[in-house]
Amino acid sequence: MEKKEDKLKEVISHAKEYGYIFPSSEIYDGLSATYDYGQLGSELKNNIKNYWWTAMVQMHENIVGIDAAIFMHPKTWKASGHVDAFNDPLIDNKDSKKRYRADVLIEEHIEKYRAKIEKDVAKGIKKFGDDFDEAQFRATNPNVLRNQAKIDEIEQRMGEALTNEDLPAVKALIEELGIACPISGSKNWTDVKQFNLMFSTELGAVAGDASTIYLRPETAQGIFVNFLNVQKSGRMKIPFGIAQIGKAFRNEIIARQFIFRMREFEQMEMQFFVRPGEEMKWYEHWKNERLKWHKALGLGENNYRVHDHIKLAHYANAACDIEFDFPMGFKELEGIHSRTDFDLKQHEEHSGKKLQYFDPELNENYTPYVIETSIGLDRMFLAVLSNSLKVEDLGEGKTRTVLQIPAALAPYKVAVLPLLKKDGLPEKAREIINSLKFDFNCQYDEKDTVGKRYRRQDAIGTPFHVTVDHQTLEDNTVTLRDRDTMEQTRVNISDLKAIIGDKVSLASLLN
Amino acid sequence: MEKKEDKLKEVISHAKEYGYIFPSSEIYDGLSATYDYGQLGSELKNNIKNYWWTAMVQMHENIVGIDAAIFMHPKTWKASGHVDAFNDPLIDNKDSKKRYRADVLIEEHIEKYRAKIEKDVAKGIKKFGDDFDEAQFRATNPNVLRNQAKIDEIEQRMGEALTNEDLPAVKALIEELGIACPISGSKNWTDVKQFNLMFSTELGAVAGDASTIYLRPETAQGIFVNFLNVQKSGRMKIPFGIAQIGKAFRNEIIARQFIFRMREFEQMEMQFFVRPGEEMKWYEHWKNERLKWHKALGLGENNYRVHDHIKLAHYANAACDIEFDFPMGFKELEGIHSRTDFDLKQHEEHSGKKLQYFDPELNENYTPYVIETSIGLDRMFLAVLSNSLKVEDLGEGKTRTVLQIPAALAPYKVAVLPLLKKDGLPEKAREIINSLKFDFNCQYDEKDTVGKRYRRQDAIGTPFHVTVDHQTLEDNTVTLRDRDTMEQTRVNISDLKAIIGDKVSLASLLN
Repeated sequence: MEKKEDKLKEVISHAKEYGYIFPSSEIYDGLSATYDYGQLGSELKNNIKNYWWTAMVQMHENIVGIDAAIFMHPKTWKASGHVDAFNDPLIDNKDSKKRYRADVLIEEHIEKYRAKIEKDVAKGIKKFGDDFDEAQFRATNPNVLRNQAKIDEIEQRMGEALTNEDLPAVKALIEELGIACPISGSKNWTDVKQFNLMFSTELGAVAGDASTIYLRPETAQGIFVNFLNVQKSGRMKIPFGIAQIGKAFRNEIIARQFIFRMREFEQMEMQFFVRPGEEMKWYEHWKNERLKWHKALGLGENNYRVHDHIKLAHYANAACDIEFDFPMGFKELEGIHSRTDFDLKQHEEHSGKKLQYFDPELNENYTPYVIETSIGLDRMFLAVLSNSLKVEDLGEGKTRTVLQIPAALAPYKVAVLPLLKKDGLPEKAREIINSLKFDFNCQYDEKDTVGKRYRRQDAIGTPFHVTVDHQTLEDNTVTLRDRDTMEQTRVNISDLKAIIGDKVSLASLLN
Repeated sequence: MEKKEDKLKEVISHAKEYGYIFPSSEIYDGLSATYDYGQLGSELKNNIKNYWWTAMVQMHENIVGIDAAIFMHPKTWKASGHVDAFNDPLIDNKDSKKRYRADVLIEEHIEKYRAKIEKDVAKGIKKFGDDFDEAQFRATNPNVLRNQAKIDEIEQRMGEALTNEDLPAVKALIEELGIACPISGSKNWTDVKQFNLMFSTELGAVAGDASTIYLRPETAQGIFVNFLNVQKSGRMKIPFGIAQIGKAFRNEIIARQFIFRMREFEQMEMQFFVRPGEEMKWYEHWKNERLKWHKALGLGENNYRVHDHIKLAHYANAACDIEFDFPMGFKELEGIHSRTDFDLKQHEEHSGKKLQYFDPELNENYTPYVIETSIGLDRMFLAVLSNSLKVEDLGEGKTRTVLQIPAALAPYKVAVLPLLKKDGLPEKAREIINSLKFDFNCQYDEKDTVGKRYRRQDAIGTPFHVTVDHQTLEDNTVTLRDRDTMEQTRVNISDLKAIIGDKVSLASLLN
């Protein structure tokens, strides 16, 4: 089996070669942790957005969308808690002048103990083979127990120090553990300081009137501040949802893993407003609905798992992640959070405006509770792309690279290929494109042999390939090739729209 | 006829009342010149994007899209000229502490002379009626000539001072003209200073490694820096285009006129790369194509005019605006620019990377020339919304407010209304919605009389209204009402999809 890190490298390289993702400003040697979506990437991204928007907004009578600005009144972020608490604890090494996240330094130190345990376990497996009782060994071996106790102790102390914002205790722990700077090797550390992750900028140029504003670190608050505007103007009745797709920005100290963690990223969020006391029912509902949405794509049931949060954020009374098996392993793809009435109450307090709902059935006013579904669009993109990229063994030492992107999300739905660049075949091919292009994104390709062109379409993920040959001119039939099975069938041109439409429509996923 | 400023107020008020546009962060009393798109606004905006993307990308074999990040390497903006030259000349009044754009102060002063001329002309018209030869009067009247000479002189001096960045000369002109601060009435001015319109922020937190970056002031540069990546990975042949929709940001001193000029806005741009020497042919081509795209919407042929630029930007050798008759009068909606090879050459120089194209037909390398089509998405939204809002006289003192948004762009395509909230009519209505919702965004409404519901759907711009009554339960027919003609016809439920689909599809605009 191929190594995980090799897989990620392959995905990055394939994404660049075929126009899915380019490093941002690459001619200037790139901008760290920023990427541009290329000609195929922008189509795939649009199709993912469209799948989400259609499923969440168009299919639900009681969910509507909005598109709030990235710039918001700065008080928004005071109310949400981001100004005071959206921080990372940073520490500098005085010799290398390098800055680190203090918690990451400690986590990496803990990893050493974990590695020791796994090494001991691996030894046991090697020595005793099938007779080795791994669970028993982990529960009783003195070395393992000692290392595990060490891990537990460090984790507990770090957790307490961070929760209490006791930064001197974080530093003391780093010093006590003897953690050294990976660059300078020295243990000469500054104090730990909190660093806010929001990007700020100055709005306006009028003297004395310029104000510091932030690039939103999440799209959710754009929904909360508009809660009453949408409810009243849209005459919404609880339970109802407000959905939004948009950019958010976080000045991550360590942004990495390709498009998984970027400083500029895109979220698809839905806030569902419910009666207080009914939030757990809706939390379960949305957890199931969202899983269903993911699994409908056919990326493999086993590639998903749900991680329920034990430790909850201050605003939540239940939360889980839908994790996906990325090339880097299982990681968060989407979060479902029961946010209580925390956000609306905070905005009430900071704005002085009532943000309540009058429930005509109960005949009373209340602040609704909120279930949030929040998916990283770029992560979703990475999940689809990395899962779709396959190198297939065709036998006789031959392979083919194929992007098995779900047909409904594929950038191009159909490629139309004239067998030869003459005899009227290109004209016939373009005639077919003209009959299909209102319904599907089509690509025309006449260069190289048909075999090479099939491989190219396989590599960019086009699910259907139509070849126009001399017989086409006589009887209006073409060869229709399927990207995944490579099967070729002879069909009438007049049937193409229905055959392809049936396979590539979003409706096939949404039923 | 209704006054222009009243019309804009009506549009703003209607947009808020029905969930098209809300002031941003309104509960915090708003953020100046920033707006949020509500539940209907976000749908209309998406539909406009989709119309543009389909017309530009999907319909053209040789145009592809990208989606570049807002964050770009800062050298990009050095190369493009924005760091050095994207400035407004500002001046402060020392008494009121208010800041102004120096050129706007002078322009407003010039307006006074213009007003005098128009007053003289108006007097002549009043006095002589049909016998008044206005052209003759303007060409010979001593007062008019004196005022016109004054205007010409001031404009010329200001133009020269700004072109030469001679800021002391700009100040001298303000003082010489005796321009006073509208707030304090004083002529006590500071020096004129250049103020850059780009928003800046700090990227990264690693000590000594944080760098100032900018929020892109235009999307075009994201296309230029990716020119070769797209051309090579997409195997594009000149002429070809790269299209993009995305946010851009400008710290305008005076941002106003609703969503017409915002500090955060969205552009839909296409850069078309052509052989040097063929740019004028393509400039004309795109000018015509873009006008056709606008006019296909049916907002009225007379609401468009083309303004050819006489004075060209330093990078252009031809440019024009497609202007639209907004509530504020004719203003720029879209710009078509022949940008020469300026941008690619600048990026070559600043990046040290060759940005040339090998033309297989000519068998030579060259830097392509570029035709740009650049449309403000928010302005397009305002054009559609303001043009669609009508108050119709129904006779007998009755009126109706109707949003005659082109059907293909309307947020909801069809409303399904049960005549009564009982007898199985709501269930039947929802059954119809379920059969249509994969194809169209549908709205269900059962509250109030059908007449009131029709008016509500008129006001939000839904082009088709389906009423379900008792006869429906017997023969599966419904009443189909047309928003614009208010005509009602009895049709079979099974025919709805085809009837509505025909009228609301983008294909109807694109043929």
